[in-house]
Amino acid sequence: MKDLLIVGGSDAGISAALRAREQDQTVQVTVLLADDFPNYSICGLPFFLSGEVPDWRALAHRTREELAGQGIRLLPRHTATAILLREREVAVSSPGGELRLSYDRLILATGASSRRPRHVEGLDLPGVFFLRWMGDGFAVDAYLQNHNPSSALIIGSGYIGMEMADALTRRGLAVSVAGHSQSVLKTVDPEFGVLIQEELDRNGVQVESRVAVGKISARDGGLAVTGAGGFQAQADLVLVATGAEPATELAVTAGIALGRGGAIQVNRRMETGVPGVYAAGDCVETWHRVLGKTVYQPLGTTAHKQGRIAGENALGGAKEYAGTLGTQVVKIFDLAVARTGLRDEEAKTEGFAPLTVETQCWDHKAYYPGPRKLHIRVTGDRATGRLLGAQIIGHWQADIAKRVDIFATAIFHGMTVDDLAQLDLSYTPPLGSPWDPVQMSAQTWCHTLSLHGKTDV
Amino acid sequence: MKDLLIVGGSDAGISAALRAREQDQTVQVTVLLADDFPNYSICGLPFFLSGEVPDWRALAHRTREELAGQGIRLLPRHTATAILLREREVAVSSPGGELRLSYDRLILATGASSRRPRHVEGLDLPGVFFLRWMGDGFAVDAYLQNHNPSSALIIGSGYIGMEMADALTRRGLAVSVAGHSQSVLKTVDPEFGVLIQEELDRNGVQVESRVAVGKISARDGGLAVTGAGGFQAQADLVLVATGAEPATELAVTAGIALGRGGAIQVNRRMETGVPGVYAAGDCVETWHRVLGKTVYQPLGTTAHKQGRIAGENALGGAKEYAGTLGTQVVKIFDLAVARTGLRDEEAKTEGFAPLTVETQCWDHKAYYPGPRKLHIRVTGDRATGRLLGAQIIGHWQADIAKRVDIFATAIFHGMTVDDLAQLDLSYTPPLGSPWDPVQMSAQTWCHTLSLHGKTDV
Repeated sequence: MKDLLIVGGSDAGISAALRAREQDQTVQVTVLLADDFPNYSICGLPFFLSGEVPDWRALAHRTREELAGQGIRLLPRHTATAILLREREVAVSSPGGELRLSYDRLILATGASSRRPRHVEGLDLPGVFFLRWMGDGFAVDAYLQNHNPSSALIIGSGYIGMEMADALTRRGLAVSVAGHSQSVLKTVDPEFGVLIQEELDRNGVQVESRVAVGKISARDGGLAVTGAGGFQAQADLVLVATGAEPATELAVTAGIALGRGGAIQVNRRMETGVPGVYAAGDCVETWHRVLGKTVYQPLGTTAHKQGRIAGENALGGAKEYAGTLGTQVVKIFDLAVARTGLRDEEAKTEGFAPLTVETQCWDHKAYYPGPRKLHIRVTGDRATGRLLGAQIIGHWQADIAKRVDIFATAIFHGMTVDDLAQLDLSYTPPLGSPWDPVQMSAQTWCHTLSLHGKTDV
Repeated sequence: MKDLLIVGGSDAGISAALRAREQDQTVQVTVLLADDFPNYSICGLPFFLSGEVPDWRALAHRTREELAGQGIRLLPRHTATAILLREREVAVSSPGGELRLSYDRLILATGASSRRPRHVEGLDLPGVFFLRWMGDGFAVDAYLQNHNPSSALIIGSGYIGMEMADALTRRGLAVSVAGHSQSVLKTVDPEFGVLIQEELDRNGVQVESRVAVGKISARDGGLAVTGAGGFQAQADLVLVATGAEPATELAVTAGIALGRGGAIQVNRRMETGVPGVYAAGDCVETWHRVLGKTVYQPLGTTAHKQGRIAGENALGGAKEYAGTLGTQVVKIFDLAVARTGLRDEEAKTEGFAPLTVETQCWDHKAYYPGPRKLHIRVTGDRATGRLLGAQIIGHWQADIAKRVDIFATAIFHGMTVDDLAQLDLSYTPPLGSPWDPVQMSAQTWCHTLSLHGKTDV
């Protein structure tokens, strides 16, 4: 094994490269990069666009020099156009022309693209944007600087839609959100969607729910957006944030099999169906630890983990990816909203007998100044008592993200809800309670189950 | 089973009472309370004395009415003087005279007393205080109000010593700390002791280390404190914070066996050696999950858990206490300092082959405003890779407590350090990193081990 070739220089690709070099300093690691921005924190783009991060260069996880210092050979603006499996070569298009690079092991980390919603016209009009790569961020920023728009419509009320509603409001625009679902951020329960919507209201963001946008058109120097049921809106800027799709063209053309959600099929060692070819990150299907099957769930944290495993295994390792729990957190104005594991309806679909119970409590002892209310929703299986999932919402400085991580660590190990009370968690009045809110909510869940019985709630 | 009698109305006793009534609303639960303050958060006393909590009544976890509403019969100022095991009765001294209360099951939750250091003279002088119970807090507060002392010497640099250095400084006193150990807060590594001492310095607290106090005497309207090696200090108020001792007199007199640290011996079901008699909280020895043996470690979190189990088992349950990890956090001025599991030297003593590695990293992506530096020390076993312990220090609002809880949850399940990288933890740039600091520090530990080999570091 001499040559490791990695297609893609974002989270998964660079994690793979770093891990490979960590394991073996003699291996030649080459990373093909479609754009000019290796190892950037694209999750940080909303904070660049909001103005909270004044210089986009700060978004680099590592500089190009640091990567070179790790012995990684970066080829920016090199786009892989074909994989020649038999020759173990990749055809590449670059500013210097076409070339072919050979490999002993290949890792595909091609990421995802913004989903372009079908049936929506006008997606290519000036002033209409997507947000995924650094280039997308620069385009939005340039438009903000050069056209000074006063209003924005965001199509989509998921993570990026919510973060950008916050960002563009900070940037001084009047922001509206048109979401397809009944409540915003449909990856958490509608009860939390209501709380998020109240926070959006407080910050002047208009939300329209259950909107199916049909057409964007230029009008009066701005953009008019129309949709089913008479939906009409006007804005100077439109951001389409309706999800991501795995970038698989390279794999498909090479005959590499796809799996869940049209993403590249991989086993838990991040091996594709072709020996010597690994894949990781937003372009692959992802093993879900609770569901025991694959899902399509493009996330930076997952990409880092999978990339690391692909890098280790490409060098002869046999590490298995332990699986996602769908753990996520997002900051929306002054709120943090976090989830891990399964929600009630997800659990039901998968054959569990879920019970979900909400608890409200303070983030620390209320007598100490500055207590903040947390809403915690715990989902467990009535039959087995197993913890299946948790969701938390509250002030963004109320340790919500790390509390959901305690749940995530418990779910990772298959704990019962009842056993959460046995965890030896830290306590001091300014930072928690003798029973941490994580444990209080578990106890409320158990108490509710005992009151209502195991089958009828 | 009709009568459950509980001696002690602090954390363990009230937890037991609540759990018992939760299980069976027909059981008669009586709680004997030596003072007048049931279910108070005595951990909150430093924050009352600092002035951050203006009204001591706010320290009640629950009011007396709430406890009565749960069907718990509280007998304040009732001191148990003897257990008559054969008669299943407890002799009680109360304002109304002597009485005897019968029981079917008995739970001892007598707590601990402040340790009175041997060989120190003058502990009973006016102006010399201990801090454990509400009454101690009132005494200090009254002295502060009535005598307006301008300086304080704290003997002891453990948790209470550190919190009270902070509290009395806030209250306007010039504070010195005289500690026995080489560095302050010896429950964390000396490297962290140095950082704590710097924080004390910044806040004007004088620290003297390796001091063995010999004598406190009244002088010039204040107190003079002298010790070995010529130690001399002068203060208007002296607080002795040199630890706690289990309150076991009642148990000893009844012939109930003691265990580790002179605390009441219990099994993991919180049963004493006498059938029908349970014990929980600061008066008992505590099962340590990593050590696999008992320790004496009086902590509020542990008391709550043990009390709950005692309450459940007194009603016929068979719940086992899962064990402590020694998880603790303390806020000292702007710092939070947390630990869980074993430190290097503790692990070595117990036959592990520990390696401890310190990592410094930001609490969230440094490009987002307000990043704060964390120091994380991870201890793992070189031979097995098992995670044994972790310590974190940094700004108190940098999610340190809940990050140590992620470590605690991992240790609880016997994870290896390497597997921490597999945990699916939450991420958004304002609140973390794609690899949370918990995982970064684990990776640094693994990398250090791989560089130095499994035996020679």
